[in-house]
Amino acid sequence: MNIVVIGIGLIGGSFAKDVKRLNPDAQIVGVDKNESHLDEAMELGIIDSKGDYGSLASADLVFVSIPVNALVQELPKILDAAGDETVVVDAGSTKSLICQSVEDHPKRRNYMACHPIAGTEFSGPSAAIEGLYDGKTNIICEVEKTAFKLQERALAIFQDMKMRIRYMNPEAHDKHIAYVSHLSHISSFMLGKTVIEKEKNERDIFDMAGSGFESTVRLAKSSPDMWAPIFEQNKDNVVETLDEYIQNLITFKKLIEENDFESVHQEMSNTNKIKQILKGIPLTKK
Amino acid sequence: MNIVVIGIGLIGGSFAKDVKRLNPDAQIVGVDKNESHLDEAMELGIIDSKGDYGSLASADLVFVSIPVNALVQELPKILDAAGDETVVVDAGSTKSLICQSVEDHPKRRNYMACHPIAGTEFSGPSAAIEGLYDGKTNIICEVEKTAFKLQERALAIFQDMKMRIRYMNPEAHDKHIAYVSHLSHISSFMLGKTVIEKEKNERDIFDMAGSGFESTVRLAKSSPDMWAPIFEQNKDNVVETLDEYIQNLITFKKLIEENDFESVHQEMSNTNKIKQILKGIPLTKK
Repeated sequence: MNIVVIGIGLIGGSFAKDVKRLNPDAQIVGVDKNESHLDEAMELGIIDSKGDYGSLASADLVFVSIPVNALVQELPKILDAAGDETVVVDAGSTKSLICQSVEDHPKRRNYMACHPIAGTEFSGPSAAIEGLYDGKTNIICEVEKTAFKLQERALAIFQDMKMRIRYMNPEAHDKHIAYVSHLSHISSFMLGKTVIEKEKNERDIFDMAGSGFESTVRLAKSSPDMWAPIFEQNKDNVVETLDEYIQNLITFKKLIEENDFESVHQEMSNTNKIKQILKGIPLTKK
Repeated sequence: MNIVVIGIGLIGGSFAKDVKRLNPDAQIVGVDKNESHLDEAMELGIIDSKGDYGSLASADLVFVSIPVNALVQELPKILDAAGDETVVVDAGSTKSLICQSVEDHPKRRNYMACHPIAGTEFSGPSAAIEGLYDGKTNIICEVEKTAFKLQERALAIFQDMKMRIRYMNPEAHDKHIAYVSHLSHISSFMLGKTVIEKEKNERDIFDMAGSGFESTVRLAKSSPDMWAPIFEQNKDNVVETLDEYIQNLITFKKLIEENDFESVHQEMSNTNKIKQILKGIPLTKK
């Protein structure tokens, strides 16, 4: 099996590692505009060789894990270069613009739009981990536009990795993912910003921070190169979630200001049901 | 050594477990207005016997871990009942009002104001864990008001538990803890609220949530009984942190709306330095 991974960081590197673990005979070619990432991936044994778009014609599967702004630029060229029997899957955190970018492409049937919901706040090939996708959800959009035989090939790999497959249209994906992923990142980044701004004398104050702060601010370590384009592509949905989040914060602040601590209690009590909801979320073991 | 733990939940129970582990001969008496918590703590072997304020006169150390609204009510009575050689320490997440509540108490020298910064989002005796305090910071306020011999006794226990001791005045404690703890809880509760409100059809949508959402929303599982009184007692500081947090969110949203993704990138990039800061935070191993 010939696999090409374009963008060999946390997401692509973890995919490559598991393909190799599950299919020891697979040949994995890495493509990355960052030469030092390719060198690192070679040294770490994540890929077998370096390649370029010339490697795509003979690939069985191409996994594209690059920032979503690069994805809309590159995906049409990747499909141009892909073989007739190649299936191209992506891992972009947005889906509408990406699907639009290849809507009328003559090889649209060679593309399967995916969003494997997995990751950590780290990036680069050294952040790649085995088993990252185990038990995680993979959202597939517009599956009917992918050639059936090629769907099967990609799905077999995802199933070997024990991913849970869900089907959704790109608009629904982008709307809901804004709530359960994009908003979390912004709330975390702005929490980090607020605390850093206030606490100039870092060492002393951050001695006071506990694991609660660490957990809530964890996503503020995420890569701006990855996230700025996501917010750009999903602008309308992200702004909507932010409006609602800000409004909820203003309401909560008002309850505190008005000494209505019964309602403050009630708000938190209502939200405690997140306990039950979270039980269904498969977590990354690190 | 006679130890009384008033409020035998996560915080008091974990303290009792470690006292017992480090001093097998210690006798631990539990006091709790919730009889079922006492029964549970007995069954779990966290306490040796049940007691009441009558148990305080002969105690070497009393550890008070009850919600901060109860603390300001009970602490003067606890000091009334304490022996002349008893040291009373608390674990309240606010310090100004609590210190004020016993400012002129004839046994003020028997009290040491503490905030061990440790915990999880769970509560009750069954949530108590060994080693919770290992490597954690314990903020001590107005240490000069505690009798030196009694300071020593309490500090010896904290040091056995490998806590890092920091001294601070109550006002500074309450101001800074609002940033590194109280704000995190509100940001998390309101994130949970925003997502729950939007996503009525929970099962389907929360399949899309990954470990990032789980991490950011973790504190929304926290106990409202504990947190509503904290926000009440630290109202002014909490409102100030919320004002700044909301303003930062509004600014970020505006940058997105104005398509200024260079500044969006810059904001996140500036906040990435939280990586270095977090390296210093001791985490709860669970």
